[in-house]
Amino acid sequence: MPVFGSIEAGGTKFRCAIAASATDIIAQADFRTRTPAETLADIITFFTESAAIHGEIAALGIGSFGPLDLDPASPCYGSIVRTPKPGWSGFNLRAALMAALACKVSIDTDVNASGLAESRLGAGRGLPSLAYITIGTGIGGGLIQSGRPLHGFAHPEMGHIRPRRAAGDNFPGICPYHGDCLEGLASGAAIFARGGRHLANLPEGDPLPAIIADYIAQLCCTLLLFAAPYRIALGGGVSSSNPGLFPLIRRSVSQQLSGYCGPLALDEIIVAPALANDAGLIGGLLLAGVMQA
Amino acid sequence: MPVFGSIEAGGTKFRCAIAASATDIIAQADFRTRTPAETLADIITFFTESAAIHGEIAALGIGSFGPLDLDPASPCYGSIVRTPKPGWSGFNLRAALMAALACKVSIDTDVNASGLAESRLGAGRGLPSLAYITIGTGIGGGLIQSGRPLHGFAHPEMGHIRPRRAAGDNFPGICPYHGDCLEGLASGAAIFARGGRHLANLPEGDPLPAIIADYIAQLCCTLLLFAAPYRIALGGGVSSSNPGLFPLIRRSVSQQLSGYCGPLALDEIIVAPALANDAGLIGGLLLAGVMQA
Repeated sequence: MPVFGSIEAGGTKFRCAIAASATDIIAQADFRTRTPAETLADIITFFTESAAIHGEIAALGIGSFGPLDLDPASPCYGSIVRTPKPGWSGFNLRAALMAALACKVSIDTDVNASGLAESRLGAGRGLPSLAYITIGTGIGGGLIQSGRPLHGFAHPEMGHIRPRRAAGDNFPGICPYHGDCLEGLASGAAIFARGGRHLANLPEGDPLPAIIADYIAQLCCTLLLFAAPYRIALGGGVSSSNPGLFPLIRRSVSQQLSGYCGPLALDEIIVAPALANDAGLIGGLLLAGVMQA
Repeated sequence: MPVFGSIEAGGTKFRCAIAASATDIIAQADFRTRTPAETLADIITFFTESAAIHGEIAALGIGSFGPLDLDPASPCYGSIVRTPKPGWSGFNLRAALMAALACKVSIDTDVNASGLAESRLGAGRGLPSLAYITIGTGIGGGLIQSGRPLHGFAHPEMGHIRPRRAAGDNFPGICPYHGDCLEGLASGAAIFARGGRHLANLPEGDPLPAIIADYIAQLCCTLLLFAAPYRIALGGGVSSSNPGLFPLIRRSVSQQLSGYCGPLALDEIIVAPALANDAGLIGGLLLAGVMQA
């Protein structure tokens, strides 16, 4: 039985895994993100040592931080376009791993990989479409339609939409490009920049959770009006640490739509991910072409 | 050679056509929209008389005003959900025509039909994706990906996204559901409600075109950040009557993105439709399964 490799490439750590099926990870290791050369050395050692025990991987799938060049016709296909992380801007992660491991390597964004896993095996299992949103240090999203991540001439960057200002919110925002785009106003970093506190530590009655929910709800409404996904899975650290956000977000979505899309079962549509921390790794395996069951 | 039927179903008129290929319409007729019974009588007479000359149509495609029930599993599949037009709320346009014409009938929204035609044969020919936006009495949009309109549990309703207020614009908006959603602020009806004037009649220096362009640009930006379509074709009466809007929209998109998506050739991305008034009819033919060339 062939084994497949997966990498969840993050700004803080790289998670690596080997599996024969999407739900059965055989070996797994995490490495702190340093320079590309240092990080890649650890990754290659992991896959080489695993190969000695479990056999060579048939293919590798990567869900990576970005932005990424995902145009198969580009000479930079598979590279990280630009990032403040030293050494990573322009680094071709896919090409480097393909050369080192001598196997087929598929790459997509971290959110598309997680969304793919949630769509096929998690919160969207059996449904035609799912949107995956991560609300962590930043905000990102992907739309999985018929089991495939949606791409245009670039991958989605839906964390940078421009929400209408929530009543009473004058925070200028922290996005270096847009100031008060969604990520600039409602990401984990933005929440912390608003006063050095996390949502979970706020006193009863603090208006901030409702403000953040208003902004996240605007992204959910836009998704519903653009693509009507059967599920919107809200992942990332801010979502998982603050389950109380979910009812606030659903209420705000309902208010913002004002009944326009008919009665919607928002409890069923706007949900937590089902695969928790493994969505990214499982998504990488699916990108690699692993069997789903 | 089999012939196919097409209907562009609008609130003012129904356009009907017969063709053997998407670019070669054999017969065409328009009928004023009255009650469903009156309108359908004319349509059925057209297709029956055409059949006597050109043969029975192999299939019919409809691009219709909506909202529509497009869930194939629904008992109301193919019906108009609700509309202020007397008699049409709940009317099952697809079922009525399927019964009368005894052929396969495909239905989608008017914007998806036009988008399909623009994507395959017009402004998006040869490209993987195109978004079609109509700015007319109302605002609607559709996204065509790999030659097919994107659907979720419902069809898109992107005219109802909630833009951020343009500087200096205090118009309350006219959308009966949302007040100042995009359609409520920037549709042809909203423009006229702002003072009984059309954009084309404004004196030099009037700020309204820039305000409308700001709002339309927000929809374009959201499309670029969600799906990065290779083309955004802006159709509808407001667009076609005011070509001066295009440079204003492109400039506003560029300002709003602030370089985030890299240098974009917005002259090539945000364009006028190529098929002009025939996009809807051609889209209906494509929905019916006509040959493309």
